[in-house]
Parts: sequence; structure tokens; C-alpha cells
Amino acid sequence: MGTKRVTYRHTIEYEVLNTTRLFHPENWALLSVGKIEDARRFIVVDSNVEKYYSTEIRDYFSHHHIEAKIVIFPGGEENKTVNHYLSILQELDTFPIHRRDEPIIAIGGGVLTDVVGFVASSYRRGVPHIKVPTTLMGYVDASIGIKTGINFNGSKNRLGAFHPPQKVLLDKSILKTLPKRHILNGVCEIIKLAIIKDAGLFCLLEANGANSIETHFQNQEGDAILDRAISGMLEELQPNLFEEDLARRVDFGHTFSYGLETRHEANLFHGEAVLLDIVVSTLIARSRNLLSEEEIGKIFHLIDLLGITLNTAILDPHLLWRSLEERTYHRNGLQRVPLPQGIGGCVFVNDIKINEIETAVKNLEDWITVKYDHT
Amino acid sequence: MGTKRVTYRHTIEYEVLNTTRLFHPENWALLSVGKIEDARRFIVVDSNVEKYYSTEIRDYFSHHHIEAKIVIFPGGEENKTVNHYLSILQELDTFPIHRRDEPIIAIGGGVLTDVVGFVASSYRRGVPHIKVPTTLMGYVDASIGIKTGINFNGSKNRLGAFHPPQKVLLDKSILKTLPKRHILNGVCEIIKLAIIKDAGLFCLLEANGANSIETHFQNQEGDAILDRAISGMLEELQPNLFEEDLARRVDFGHTFSYGLETRHEANLFHGEAVLLDIVVSTLIARSRNLLSEEEIGKIFHLIDLLGITLNTAILDPHLLWRSLEERTYHRNGLQRVPLPQGIGGCVFVNDIKINEIETAVKNLEDWITVKYDHT
Repeated sequence: MGTKRVTYRHTIEYEVLNTTRLFHPENWALLSVGKIEDARRFIVVDSNVEKYYSTEIRDYFSHHHIEAKIVIFPGGEENKTVNHYLSILQELDTFPIHRRDEPIIAIGGGVLTDVVGFVASSYRRGVPHIKVPTTLMGYVDASIGIKTGINFNGSKNRLGAFHPPQKVLLDKSILKTLPKRHILNGVCEIIKLAIIKDAGLFCLLEANGANSIETHFQNQEGDAILDRAISGMLEELQPNLFEEDLARRVDFGHTFSYGLETRHEANLFHGEAVLLDIVVSTLIARSRNLLSEEEIGKIFHLIDLLGITLNTAILDPHLLWRSLEERTYHRNGLQRVPLPQGIGGCVFVNDIKINEIETAVKNLEDWITVKYDHT
Repeated sequence: MGTKRVTYRHTIEYEVLNTTRLFHPENWALLSVGKIEDARRFIVVDSNVEKYYSTEIRDYFSHHHIEAKIVIFPGGEENKTVNHYLSILQELDTFPIHRRDEPIIAIGGGVLTDVVGFVASSYRRGVPHIKVPTTLMGYVDASIGIKTGINFNGSKNRLGAFHPPQKVLLDKSILKTLPKRHILNGVCEIIKLAIIKDAGLFCLLEANGANSIETHFQNQEGDAILDRAISGMLEELQPNLFEEDLARRVDFGHTFSYGLETRHEANLFHGEAVLLDIVVSTLIARSRNLLSEEEIGKIFHLIDLLGITLNTAILDPHLLWRSLEERTYHRNGLQRVPLPQGIGGCVFVNDIKINEIETAVKNLEDWITVKYDHT
């Protein structure tokens, strides 16, 4: 008996679709995949969605004669747990759905879509799901890719799967009710993308970022920023959907943030941790002459312009170093830290030393309090 | 902003490799994927493997200077639980491995490779793993595909993932120490394949099945049977690796067995339940004139010849019906029951009624006690 080789080419395909008035009975987006005759839907919403949209959602499905079970997940990083994952599965299993044509619908922030995505990936070895991001973070980052996950054993996203959605539905009007801090949370990921790959997006943020934040991106300029950010994100994700290449531009800001988020889970939003990482990484890049003083100035100026304050007091170099070590493990033994090369460019480095982190943290205070004023 | 489409072609590739003296220091099969310099391996074995091979396995890795952590999983259907899944994950996470080049190694029966496969699928959104089946069931069925899973909420394999191994290593000599009941357990899956797709394999079983069982498949004729069974199984799995087509020949014997296994978890082996399903399905096929009396006779004769006794007392038609209903749900609303058409042929039906099941169960006793003697 010889060796037998199994080969299979699997095509992943999904759409990120813009829509308006998502819960209006005449909008078919939510029912655009799956069966609609004699059908059921299992829907998970977070407490904010419940608060603002529960009646509309219930009416929507009853209008279409769909038997809907709506489950409320509290949302928030501290609930991204094995227990919540299992309890959603329990609810799902007692309200059975068909395996292929009754997609689970996840409506909420990044934590919710991550947890429900993992539920969908593991129930009966994978059932379809639709994601509806309701936070800016979900809108430009968490919901548009295929990563799902929960925290485990004290580590963020330690369990999860790559599980593509059938569809991602974007309705910008949902962002209207979002608290300001949540808007800024998502903006941090847009800043990330601008610095590491898209100088044009950086310019758009400089020109229209502040007023877009003001209007919760309901303005036309806000549209342009969101569209460019999402296109850029998908451009990075699509050719490397399963992270076969572990050197990823979109990991900019996601090296030191991991440890910060783990330690300050209850107080720090993901984007806030990412932005702290960005400024530290940027100063490391500066000390390696990858960025000019002027470019650094522009970055700090933009952060200030957008009204984001950085809680630099929590930047403990030893914590950042341990986070880098953990990410190095996650990246299969090499640091693979993306650093900006100018604004819009990127290089990957594997040799960051702890003293570079210490120096960056030390220099940071100066930049925040003084330097950007002179640019 | 328009619709954005994400498309990705993902290639799955793995080998099912025959080897001998797997744990001999000069056999590199276990280390044929992943790094070997300054490397670690997380190995899960079941209690039987621990009993017979623990010293050899330990020596193997220490000979190759690999830091190995060997975790013992009790094995057995009743341990295919969320708790065991989580506890293996916990052990894995405290003994970190690299994400890409230190594959988890699962050595054991089908339950073990299913559970460890699910661990591998969900740790850090998927890490590589190698499967070494040590039971005949694993050898010809559970380990060579990409299905992983655990039981949940009273249902078998309710959670899991499609997660391809990097390699499946087959060492026939491991079957030597297997209890007879475990050999027969795997033989039931071979019978399944023979009836539903391979008349030639059926002939081989008639001619050499009994003596192959006698020698635990260490004979040359046993080789031929195993090779043909594995090739046939892979032929069915490969073009439909993710079960995009829910009408699967290999689901023959897996419709009524589901309920039987759930109710009699502690007493019934998977193959035993499958064979009970096979005889019920075969008699349903007979009543639909898909099989002749003579063919039915040959099937019962083969079962007898191979020394397998059928515990027909547990065949409660209502339980079988409910199992069919559950599988219908799992198969997205259609029964899609594979029935034999002659020996080696297959049709799918969607209209089995409870009275057909009742009649089949009633007729079964007659067949077992009398009919095959006359063929």
C-alpha cells in the first residue's frame, strides 16, 4: 500500500454589502441568503441593539413570517468567554435551524460577531452566518474578515476559527446611536490602515476626519473615509484570508496592544490599545529612521486633531515586551512586527529589543505634550 | 459605496501514509512535518496507547531531542465532552507550541482523533495536527477524513469542525493489540462501504474477511481489504470534503445509528450501531425492490461469516424514526438516506415512512435466525 494524497480546492466567497434602513420590511438584505418559506432564523443581538432596535427586528421577521428566536448577548470584552459561547450554542441547539439554509444572524459589535462567528463555525461543524456590525470597529475591521474567536485561559482570542460569513451587511445609520468613545475606537483602526498602507486615507482623515467623527460618519466625506478604509482592509485580507502569510500589514498596532488589552480588559477598548501600540511602534520606526520627524509630527497631530487622548500612563515597557514575546509565539517564532516606512509604507522587522521599547515609551510623553504643536 | 466581494481559493492537501515500526527511532514519519531543530511536540494518546506504547513514544522523541509533552485522554465515547476538549486545550496552552510548525500529534482511536482534531481546529484559530489511528475504526474511517467533533447537549458530534490533518500515519501493526470487539467495530464500516459502493470489496470480505479478522489484518489478504476500503472511503470523501453535497454514500448506516448510539452510548460501539442501521436500511431497500432476496441473503451470510452478532433487541422503531428526523434536520430538511441498489450500488431516498421501519425491524429477526442459511 502506498501513500494516498487528498487534494481539494475550496472556494470561499462572500459579500460586504452596503444597505440602508436594514430593518425596514421592504429591505430584503437580511433575508437575501437562506430560505424564506417556512423558515426560521436564530438571531443574536447585543444589549445595545436590543435597546434601540428590538421592536424593529421582531417586526421585520414577523412581517416576513419567519420564526425568529432572538437571543441577547451582553457584549463587552469581558463576556467573550467559553461560558457565553456555550450558552449561545445551547440556545441554538434547543431552537434548531437547518444546517445550510437558515443562517445565524449576528447583530452587534466586534465582540458579538466574533463570538457568534465561532458559534457558527463549530455548530454541526459549521453553519452559515450573516454579520451586521453595529459599531465602527465592527464596521471597518472585526466583521468584514473571517476571524472568529473567544478569550481563553487569560488570553485574548485564544480559541476560534477562520469561518467566512455568507454576507456582511453594513448600514451606516446604525452608527448614529453609538457613543463617541465607540466612534473613536473604530477610528483608531482607520488610522492604523492609513499609516501602514494608505497615505491617501491619511490625507482624508486630516481633511475630513474630525467632522466625520462629529457626524458619526453620516456625512459624505465620512462615506469616502469608510469606503476607503473597508476597501483597504479587504485588499489586505483577501489574498491572505487564512493568514498563511504571518507577516500582515494589518497587524500594525496589534503587537503591544495584546498585552495592554489583556491587563486592562475592563477599561481599555481594542482601538485604544491599538493606537497606543501605533504610537510606540511609530517611535520605534522613527529611531530606526523609517519615518522622519515631520511624519511623526503629522501622526501625533492627526491624533490630536481627531480628539483622541492617549492614556500613556499604562505603557509599562515590560508588559509591552512580554506582549511582543507572546505575539512572536503566535507568529510562529518570528516577531514579524509591521513598522511604518514613511506614511503609507510598511516594513516587517524581527529584531526589536526591549530597550527600543523603553526609549519609545520615554520619548512618547514629549511628543504628546509638545512636538506636534510645531508641525 | 457598492458591494464588495471577497473571493479566495483555498487548497486543502494531506497525505494518508502507510508505514511500519512507527515509533522506531529511524522512522521519520512522525517528524516528517514541522520543524525538528529546537522543537516541541504536544502529543495526546489514549489510555490504551499509553499502556502499550508510552515508553517507545517517549524514547522516540527524546532520541530526536524534541521536547515532548504527552497528555493522556481516557478515550471512549462517554469522554467526548466539552470538558475533556477544554482540559486538553488548557494543557496545550500551558505548553505552548508554535502555531505553524509544531503539529499536535493525536495517537488513538476515533474518539481521540475527533476530539484532538477539534482542539487543533480551534486553538489559535487552527494549528496543524497529525493523526495516528490505533483502532480499525480510526484506520478505515474516522482518521482519514477531515471531520472533528465532540458531543454536546446530549447529541453526538454536535460541535466540531472540518479541519484537515497535515498527515495521517497508518501502522497496521498497532492493530495487533486491539481487542476482537474493536476489530469487528471497524469491519462494520468496511461492510458499509462494500454494500453501498464496492461489490469487489464485498467479494474480498466473503473470501478473506474471516481470516483477516482472525489475524487482526496482519495477513496479506487483510492488506488488500484495508487498502481497498481506505481508497474507496477517500474516493467518496475527496470530491466532497466539506460535505457541500449532503447526499453522501458514506452516510449509509449513519441514519438510524445516530439515535441508537445516543441512547446506548456506554454499551454500543459506533460500528455496531452502524451495522444495525445497515440491516434495517437493507430490509427497507428490499421492500422497495432495490435488492433481491438473494442479495439480502448474501449480506446476512457475510455478517454471520465474519462472526458478528447483532443486538437487534435494542431496535426500537420509534427511536429509529426520531433518529431519522434528527438526521433529516442535519441534512438540511431532506432525509437523503442512502439505500443499496443491489450490492455495490446506491440510491438516495427522501420518503421513508415509520411503518417501513417497523416492518424492517419485524422482518429482521427472521432473516437473522433462518434465511441466510438457505442462500
